[in-house]
Amino acid sequence: MEADLIAWLRRTLPPHPLLKLGAGDDAAALALGQGHDCLVTTDIITDHIDFKLDETTADRIGRKALAVNLSDIAAMAGEPVAAVIGLVLPRQGGFELAQGIFNGILPLAEEYGVAIAGGDTNSWDGPLVVSVTLIGRAVGNPLRRDGARPGDKIIVTGNFGGSILGRHFDFTPRVSEALLLNKRYQLHAGMDVSDGLSLDLSRLCAASGCGARVELAKVPISDDARRLADQLADSTTPLDHALSDGEDFELLLAVPPDDARRMLEEQPLDVQLTCIGEFVAEAGLRQVDDRGNVSPLTPRGYQHSL
Amino acid sequence: MEADLIAWLRRTLPPHPLLKLGAGDDAAALALGQGHDCLVTTDIITDHIDFKLDETTADRIGRKALAVNLSDIAAMAGEPVAAVIGLVLPRQGGFELAQGIFNGILPLAEEYGVAIAGGDTNSWDGPLVVSVTLIGRAVGNPLRRDGARPGDKIIVTGNFGGSILGRHFDFTPRVSEALLLNKRYQLHAGMDVSDGLSLDLSRLCAASGCGARVELAKVPISDDARRLADQLADSTTPLDHALSDGEDFELLLAVPPDDARRMLEEQPLDVQLTCIGEFVAEAGLRQVDDRGNVSPLTPRGYQHSL
Repeated sequence: MEADLIAWLRRTLPPHPLLKLGAGDDAAALALGQGHDCLVTTDIITDHIDFKLDETTADRIGRKALAVNLSDIAAMAGEPVAAVIGLVLPRQGGFELAQGIFNGILPLAEEYGVAIAGGDTNSWDGPLVVSVTLIGRAVGNPLRRDGARPGDKIIVTGNFGGSILGRHFDFTPRVSEALLLNKRYQLHAGMDVSDGLSLDLSRLCAASGCGARVELAKVPISDDARRLADQLADSTTPLDHALSDGEDFELLLAVPPDDARRMLEEQPLDVQLTCIGEFVAEAGLRQVDDRGNVSPLTPRGYQHSL
Repeated sequence: MEADLIAWLRRTLPPHPLLKLGAGDDAAALALGQGHDCLVTTDIITDHIDFKLDETTADRIGRKALAVNLSDIAAMAGEPVAAVIGLVLPRQGGFELAQGIFNGILPLAEEYGVAIAGGDTNSWDGPLVVSVTLIGRAVGNPLRRDGARPGDKIIVTGNFGGSILGRHFDFTPRVSEALLLNKRYQLHAGMDVSDGLSLDLSRLCAASGCGARVELAKVPISDDARRLADQLADSTTPLDHALSDGEDFELLLAVPPDDARRMLEEQPLDVQLTCIGEFVAEAGLRQVDDRGNVSPLTPRGYQHSL
């Protein structure tokens, strides 16, 4: 990483108990502790695709770049430990932009106990690129996608849809929530909803070799989804937004029935837990409307194209 | 990472003993083993800056993106374990380009025992960006930059200069070399030479709070440096290239005198080890010419700008 930026970061960064060697050497060294597997996830976000630099502030971009990775570690029910940051900066005003990005990264990193362990910067004539790789450590068994079984309840945190109105920048990564749930209840599988509730549910089903039945009336619809449906005034309903909008970053869990019942009664989190249906043996998604009619549910959401 | 690319990678990737969960879930899980600290390093390389997509092949770009990170883990005398790959791809031909990049990454990863643990891809109308984060594990004490002491010998592997003629793509990351040297000899400090021998030496000195005296006649000049000086036919000598060209990716070590003597006699590597001078108490770099005249040596090399 560029010398001035490293110097500024070194003055700014607090010490971290697991970081033995931080930014400024050839690599960082982390003491993850005995018995903890190392978790690693990466996201690369770009101007015009994941944010618009001319319509938002650098700190919100930095916050998002770290937050999406925190959500991935949460989806494994892991503890985040340290991040490395790759930046490709426009030549004009690059240093100030980098500082702005870090001004969004650092408070969130501190809140979640994440050490900034290093990074790399480059400058060019192209648009801004922010790459964050987050190292975590497993606590107990990582929460994988491939463990859902027929009969498991589909449990989600929070509300869905309309994050484009702003929540995709300032959402709460469900790290402590996932740690608590994974400690207190039996969870068969889980992931974070990043590309759309129905699409990500179909992925969890595919990984687990099962299907799912969603009770439409139970899907928690965010106020943003209602506002967005009002604003767009097309045929898309708030429920459609809840099922297909991306970037909710809520947890989607497969929970055996007894634990699901207990979890819903106890509501141990600050955020609401909701059962939206159950996993079934037959592949594919089905929806149940409020009259009990069952029909196919087409997975929709953000499809990453190449 | 995009579904088709993950599917292709899953078919292609060999299993890895330390990778408990690979690409396709929210994060990868690595079993680094007890007593091994986790090393992490990242590099982000871009079209027009680190390579020219229209003048080279995708596999060479992929190889370089991993190799520069391997060199960083080597510079810590660590063992590489797993990499995650971030790609920002042009919309046209992105899948084929991604495959080409991985066709350069995978053979090198296999050669160095590196698991490809996951990644993220994005598409846009801008140029290619490749971000690689490499996780390693420490073996014994990591080789830091800040331990050089006055009286230590400056030892380097290989030859310097002119890597732009091609070696910056196909260099050998000095991973096994660093592991062997760190096991068999006492090393006080070390780094890899990525931005130029004199510039990186000045950085190692700054981190260690000392200076260095370089005997110019002993600097190992690569054939590439001589060819480049011939081609350019300006006032830059082969020695100038050796002292200031970037991307040699050789090891630069601070070795106490007795171990240095033994190391040079034994020459335990396939690549030549050379003593090019010694570290001194007085800050800054000095050069000694073949008549014994001492003068300041200005650190030169690739300066990362923002």
